[in-house]
Amino acid sequence: MSSQLTWPSRSHGCGAVTTADISSKVTICGWVDRNRDMGGVQFFDVRDHTGLLQVICEPQSVAPEVSRTASRLRNEYVVCVRGVLRARKDPNPKIPTGQLELLAESVEILNVVSRPLPFPISEAEEQEAPKEDTRLKNRVLDLRRPKMAANLRLRHKLLRLIRTFLEDRHGFMEVETPILTRSTPEGARDYLVPSRVQPGEWYALPQSPQLFKQMLMVAGMDRYYQIARCFRDEDLRADRQPEFTQLDIEVSFMDDKALQGLMEELVLQVFDQILGVQLAAPFRRMSYAEAMDKYGSDKPDLRYGLEFVDVSAAVAGCGFKVFAGAVAEGGVVKAIRVPDGKRISNTRIKPKGDIANEAVAAGAAGLASIRVAADGSLDAAKAIKEGLSAEQAAQVLAATGAQPGDLLLLAAGPRDTVNRALDRVRQLLGRDLGLIQPGDHSLLWVVDFPMFEYNPDEGRYQAIHHPFTAPRPDDWASGDYVNARALAYDLVYNGVEIGGGSLRIYRRDIQQKVFELIGLTPAEAQSKFGYLLDCFEYGAPPHGGLAFGLDRLAMLLAGAPSIRDVIAFPKTTQAQCALTGAPAPVADKQLVELSIASTAAPKTQN
Amino acid sequence: MSSQLTWPSRSHGCGAVTTADISSKVTICGWVDRNRDMGGVQFFDVRDHTGLLQVICEPQSVAPEVSRTASRLRNEYVVCVRGVLRARKDPNPKIPTGQLELLAESVEILNVVSRPLPFPISEAEEQEAPKEDTRLKNRVLDLRRPKMAANLRLRHKLLRLIRTFLEDRHGFMEVETPILTRSTPEGARDYLVPSRVQPGEWYALPQSPQLFKQMLMVAGMDRYYQIARCFRDEDLRADRQPEFTQLDIEVSFMDDKALQGLMEELVLQVFDQILGVQLAAPFRRMSYAEAMDKYGSDKPDLRYGLEFVDVSAAVAGCGFKVFAGAVAEGGVVKAIRVPDGKRISNTRIKPKGDIANEAVAAGAAGLASIRVAADGSLDAAKAIKEGLSAEQAAQVLAATGAQPGDLLLLAAGPRDTVNRALDRVRQLLGRDLGLIQPGDHSLLWVVDFPMFEYNPDEGRYQAIHHPFTAPRPDDWASGDYVNARALAYDLVYNGVEIGGGSLRIYRRDIQQKVFELIGLTPAEAQSKFGYLLDCFEYGAPPHGGLAFGLDRLAMLLAGAPSIRDVIAFPKTTQAQCALTGAPAPVADKQLVELSIASTAAPKTQN
Repeated sequence: MSSQLTWPSRSHGCGAVTTADISSKVTICGWVDRNRDMGGVQFFDVRDHTGLLQVICEPQSVAPEVSRTASRLRNEYVVCVRGVLRARKDPNPKIPTGQLELLAESVEILNVVSRPLPFPISEAEEQEAPKEDTRLKNRVLDLRRPKMAANLRLRHKLLRLIRTFLEDRHGFMEVETPILTRSTPEGARDYLVPSRVQPGEWYALPQSPQLFKQMLMVAGMDRYYQIARCFRDEDLRADRQPEFTQLDIEVSFMDDKALQGLMEELVLQVFDQILGVQLAAPFRRMSYAEAMDKYGSDKPDLRYGLEFVDVSAAVAGCGFKVFAGAVAEGGVVKAIRVPDGKRISNTRIKPKGDIANEAVAAGAAGLASIRVAADGSLDAAKAIKEGLSAEQAAQVLAATGAQPGDLLLLAAGPRDTVNRALDRVRQLLGRDLGLIQPGDHSLLWVVDFPMFEYNPDEGRYQAIHHPFTAPRPDDWASGDYVNARALAYDLVYNGVEIGGGSLRIYRRDIQQKVFELIGLTPAEAQSKFGYLLDCFEYGAPPHGGLAFGLDRLAMLLAGAPSIRDVIAFPKTTQAQCALTGAPAPVADKQLVELSIASTAAPKTQN
Repeated sequence: MSSQLTWPSRSHGCGAVTTADISSKVTICGWVDRNRDMGGVQFFDVRDHTGLLQVICEPQSVAPEVSRTASRLRNEYVVCVRGVLRARKDPNPKIPTGQLELLAESVEILNVVSRPLPFPISEAEEQEAPKEDTRLKNRVLDLRRPKMAANLRLRHKLLRLIRTFLEDRHGFMEVETPILTRSTPEGARDYLVPSRVQPGEWYALPQSPQLFKQMLMVAGMDRYYQIARCFRDEDLRADRQPEFTQLDIEVSFMDDKALQGLMEELVLQVFDQILGVQLAAPFRRMSYAEAMDKYGSDKPDLRYGLEFVDVSAAVAGCGFKVFAGAVAEGGVVKAIRVPDGKRISNTRIKPKGDIANEAVAAGAAGLASIRVAADGSLDAAKAIKEGLSAEQAAQVLAATGAQPGDLLLLAAGPRDTVNRALDRVRQLLGRDLGLIQPGDHSLLWVVDFPMFEYNPDEGRYQAIHHPFTAPRPDDWASGDYVNARALAYDLVYNGVEIGGGSLRIYRRDIQQKVFELIGLTPAEAQSKFGYLLDCFEYGAPPHGGLAFGLDRLAMLLAGAPSIRDVIAFPKTTQAQCALTGAPAPVADKQLVELSIASTAAPKTQN
């Protein structure tokens, strides 16, 4: 290795040479990916972001010091190799450059590896993926692994095609909105940033550019988009990050159907160009009410059936107290019919069984089951069998369409609990019964969400989407505001919400009414959102928009198990960066300048 | 206006209709831009982001209520107009749709203006630009002004062409780096974000993605770019913002010449596509030493001459104490020659004159002047005239090339002070003497910056660019580390730094030596930058990069007086958002959750 720094240039990427380059002088730079000595002839692969190329160092064709250098190469050394490209005698069909090899004339070591690698980088040497905490701590090496590099390339390709689609095909304009903005604690918890210049005051990092993009519409921008960084200080789940990226879109003078159509066109492009999958548009649409009724979820996975059937009417007043009681108390009894029910053993649906546990984890008292015998009679726990009259049993069979051999799984109780319980049961069954084919892609718009839901803890209504969502004009005109449906829509892919949006309120009177309904006094509304309310008085156009969660979408497209696999430098579930150690203590001087003090107990060394 | 919200669709943008659309049914939506009643016939313009279109409402061709609606329209009402496009009898050559008008069949008011406009939006009605504080407070209306809308479109176009150039032509990959990261207080002051999950610990907002992009190179990404948001908590100047946007670039296996060549190609594209100006490459290169010597600045404006001439040798030991003393104390005497010096009156260069004031503001004791009379003799203050021997006077004339009628402006003292003083004088003269032609574009690479400068306040050397900058190998090999030049380069446009970068250190030993030279102990270096040092041991490639300040570049391209004019929602010089009121107080509960307390004195109401 040179004692000084050097910056050589290459002529080709390792994976960018083709048979057209045979007999050309070629210079490549990259990382050594396996070095083999085959009877005095040195073979090694060189890897860069374009691919791999085999280098051969023949003692008869190079100076002895070149062979000596080649023999010293170890995995992940950085090299610059000059030579002549030639056809390979023993082609390797597994890699794109497998027909070619570089006959080395010079080998320069640009940098070495001076500590043991925590895991192998070479795809050829990887036995199993390293543990995630090791990967996050050594993220730089982890990203050098071909799988992770491919994930970042996929993400880049996704962003690029989104931009091209919106800008070139549909005239959208990218506008950057502030990261240092004002706290609007209507949604999740904000990340705060103390102001040094205004002591005692705080910026907040945006949970989304919602208000800015609406103001851009009032400013006449018409078609805005941004690949926007958003922030939520929430307790993290597996698929959440403190900062995340969303495709943020807002348009004026377009209705919800046209906006959804535009997004469908984009999704078609994404699936075509990233996965080579052709989807059909328009996507299916389902009302929130129907989704909750049939699937107990506002993001049902429609790759398989197992719809719920409400059998409350059939079992009302029956002798089985759990069913009859639920109906009598205003709740429901719903069933999932599992065809060929013998696939599910009794152990799994009895108390403590894995399927029953799903229902219990969702808050249900338990899971009831009925098997339909070959003769059409019901096989169930004694209390159920005896509690249902023949007529009631026949009504259950008729309602569910159950056939001999089928299994019915039932939950009873308050509607929300039953929905949550059977949703979990249904998802487990979908995976477990092999109902999901690898190539299945189900896209669905869920529409007609309610505007509000009642929050019993806070004793007030709150907005289901956000308080800027427009009500359906027909519902609003009825005056029954709290039960109005919203002009909101979510896009659901294979049971995962990948996007959501709404038409927005663009008049002060209606916006103020919504604030009032969610319990904000006029003074509070003006203090928090006055700048939005005021600008509605200066000629606000009808507008609406949508946001896609790009981390999640990239994860789904990459088939990655976690969004952390499609983010270059993600945080752990403890919101920490394992690589840099953020967050970390700072110098007292920094806090003094900011006029703040930490009230945290000092950390003990351990 | 409808009592309910409606979302009509348009068929065309107002500025998007052409003569090919004549006789077509057209629907436009937008803002009313002047309404005129011409003898019972209503004319009004409708504006959207695509342009303006004139609408005519003839009583004989529409229902009376349509005419009545049209007569009620006021500026900035939002309307939807349906009608038939026709050729205009009296074309308006000033606007692209001036050949056309829309004969209204229906006029729908979508929204009204219910409070007085703080300033006119219509370009036709604008007398002078409104005051900036009014504009920032009413930013939504300000952005509706055609000039500001054009600025944001220019910025969008700039971003778009940068992306296309880097991605499509040169295979760069966009990678998003974290906004919540770790404080590295080597540079400016960080914005801090308290961690709720790790009480007493802090994230910092990045001053640049520097370390992440270098790690991406070690990860094998090769060609990275990002339109990156960066943050600095500095006291603001006119052209600074707490958050700003930079084009961030890093490449491996490329030398500085190739990297600069790539950036020149990009700049050529930018000027061609945005301004229609063809520049020539390669751009001029100048060493830091030469720039400081001739222009007293590391970002000289080369649209005009007025180079400095060092006359120290000519005046050493002369009878004028100010000159002789400066040289004797190790300082310098430098001169600017102003041809045709009678353009500058004595009042301006005497003490308290505006030109002399520039020198004083830069720390100089004053500005000396010598006029060359028609006979070649010197006309100056008595002390200078009598202090210079005939031979010394002749040497000054020879060194500066001064001719009869010329004016010499001189400063004497420590080199830094003289440079700063004459730089300011030179810039004032450049503007004042009309030496800058409107179409002049001067692009310059300043190279060979020193690695370090001595900070007498802190009693240590510090990095001029940043401590990750590579030294010139020839200088470093000499062992005279603190005087080594860096492989750093700045791109200067018309006297403004628009970009800068360097090749980077990619070996642990050299990086540690640099940290040692700037006064970091090995333990401090490991604690602050250990993750970078460590990853250099895993095979780091030779790499380098660059960043462009996009706000400033957009401002220069737009010919805007302030970067605030090319940022949708900027902060004031007090780092406040006049629109949303950020920063602002937050609820005590939020601070308690974050384990922090404000030590600021409570604000008194006023």
